[in-house]
Amino acid sequence: MQYDVVILGSGPAGLGAAVYAKRAMLSCLVLEKKSMSGGQIADTGEVDNYLGLPGLDGFSLAQKFREHAERLEVPFSRCEIVSVKKNSDGFLLEAKDGTCYAAKTVVVATGARHRLLGVSGEKELTGAGVSYCATCDGAFFRGKEVAVVGGGDVALSDALYLARMAQKVYLIHRRDTLRGSRHLQQQVLSNERITFLPNTIVTQILGDGRVSGVQMENKRDGALQTLSVDGVFIAVGMEPETAFLGELVQKDSSGYLVAGEDAVTSVPGLFAVGDARTKRLRQVVTAVSDGANAIASAEEYLLNQD
Amino acid sequence: MQYDVVILGSGPAGLGAAVYAKRAMLSCLVLEKKSMSGGQIADTGEVDNYLGLPGLDGFSLAQKFREHAERLEVPFSRCEIVSVKKNSDGFLLEAKDGTCYAAKTVVVATGARHRLLGVSGEKELTGAGVSYCATCDGAFFRGKEVAVVGGGDVALSDALYLARMAQKVYLIHRRDTLRGSRHLQQQVLSNERITFLPNTIVTQILGDGRVSGVQMENKRDGALQTLSVDGVFIAVGMEPETAFLGELVQKDSSGYLVAGEDAVTSVPGLFAVGDARTKRLRQVVTAVSDGANAIASAEEYLLNQD
Repeated sequence: MQYDVVILGSGPAGLGAAVYAKRAMLSCLVLEKKSMSGGQIADTGEVDNYLGLPGLDGFSLAQKFREHAERLEVPFSRCEIVSVKKNSDGFLLEAKDGTCYAAKTVVVATGARHRLLGVSGEKELTGAGVSYCATCDGAFFRGKEVAVVGGGDVALSDALYLARMAQKVYLIHRRDTLRGSRHLQQQVLSNERITFLPNTIVTQILGDGRVSGVQMENKRDGALQTLSVDGVFIAVGMEPETAFLGELVQKDSSGYLVAGEDAVTSVPGLFAVGDARTKRLRQVVTAVSDGANAIASAEEYLLNQD
Repeated sequence: MQYDVVILGSGPAGLGAAVYAKRAMLSCLVLEKKSMSGGQIADTGEVDNYLGLPGLDGFSLAQKFREHAERLEVPFSRCEIVSVKKNSDGFLLEAKDGTCYAAKTVVVATGARHRLLGVSGEKELTGAGVSYCATCDGAFFRGKEVAVVGGGDVALSDALYLARMAQKVYLIHRRDTLRGSRHLQQQVLSNERITFLPNTIVTQILGDGRVSGVQMENKRDGALQTLSVDGVFIAVGMEPETAFLGELVQKDSSGYLVAGEDAVTSVPGLFAVGDARTKRLRQVVTAVSDGANAIASAEEYLLNQD
């Protein structure tokens, strides 16, 4: 069977697309790598900015999304796609186990991974003081002390964002100078709530069930120091899950699929949504919105194929 | 007091912006013309495509949105803004009752109105078979018979969309030829589920509590005829609520504020979201997403003003 649309990924963007595809009566299939939907939010503590569903933990929000799709009888299949080819008739997707799927259109909703620091305590305390998203979680740290790890634009923006609510922000960077834009650097360095700690690496995140601090090493003299903080925001980059597409479609230098609000990529019939596409604001609601837009684009594409 | 951001409108786009503004610790105020939030959805029957909250009536969904904003202590004020001026210091907004508000940034979330047919039965049966959005409500008419009123691109797309689920679609247009794109016209005219009724106007929508049909008049001979349908989709255009902005900001020929995904308009510091801006897919989730994006843009703008 050739599906009207195969959706790769079952995070907010993929499920958003699935709901719109079903309601548009397109034949569709969602392929997911893991058995549990939700993408990154499934591992997130509280999500308080998806309008209408305040104060849920990420797992519960992911479940609500999943239930919505299941209510509409969206079909799911569990597999990892390793290659996508386009032929005159549409797309051929090959899974790791050798299964092939045929589709007239493909919606890539495979998301992105936050790069990890790779230190002890990081995984254990994710969602319990360790966060990869200041916009998502900053509001939980009003009047508290936090650390931001990184030196690029995102780290600097996160530090400035957090300085509006946290009492104190430590910006920990492994180099002696920041990498982000000059304007952001000036703002950060002149902000009295932000203390910049250059030449410093985090060696461990401390806390028993909840973050209580970080252990840091000064790269110049190797001295170890402990810093008490309530939260650690890690901003050392993201990696979109797009390697499996190879050279098929245009990517930016970081691997994001080049696509605008309409989800249209360099390959007609292949649409990119959510964290996997080039965009500024990677949030649950912007991902779900992408899913809706991609199906509108897919419908238009299919109409022109008939 | 000069607010960081004043949000005009309390539909999905305005409330989405308010939640992000609050969480970003910006001082904000939402100005609403009516006492009840929700914009167009408040008058909508079932909304089944806002991911995570399936099967709610529009009023209940609007209430959930409102409760989320109130939980975050978003301040609301009821007034109608009649003019917006920009000065060196920011924006000055004047209300109908003479009250003035000062803001560093403005988010325009005033939405759009669907043009009405203006016939008897239309208002009474809105949400009970009369709809202004095929993408929103089409799925409720599987296997049923529906009428689409209009002859432009939206009407044609609606007819094609509905033909995938409804058993029969009547396309009622007052002129003898359709206005929409040639490609859509071909698709519509060759679709065996769609019957085109040219030179025909709807004079009344029939039904007791729920649509049962329409009364039509043939414009050539004045003959009246009754058509049994379960739903009437009215696609005779929309009017964005942007007249109060006068010549301040760039609009397209229909009055929509020209802005992309980032909500940035021709006026720095003034952002446009939801149905009031130029966009393709006017849905609840795309409006809420716009609100989030506008606040990210406003934050960036404010950072550069400091």
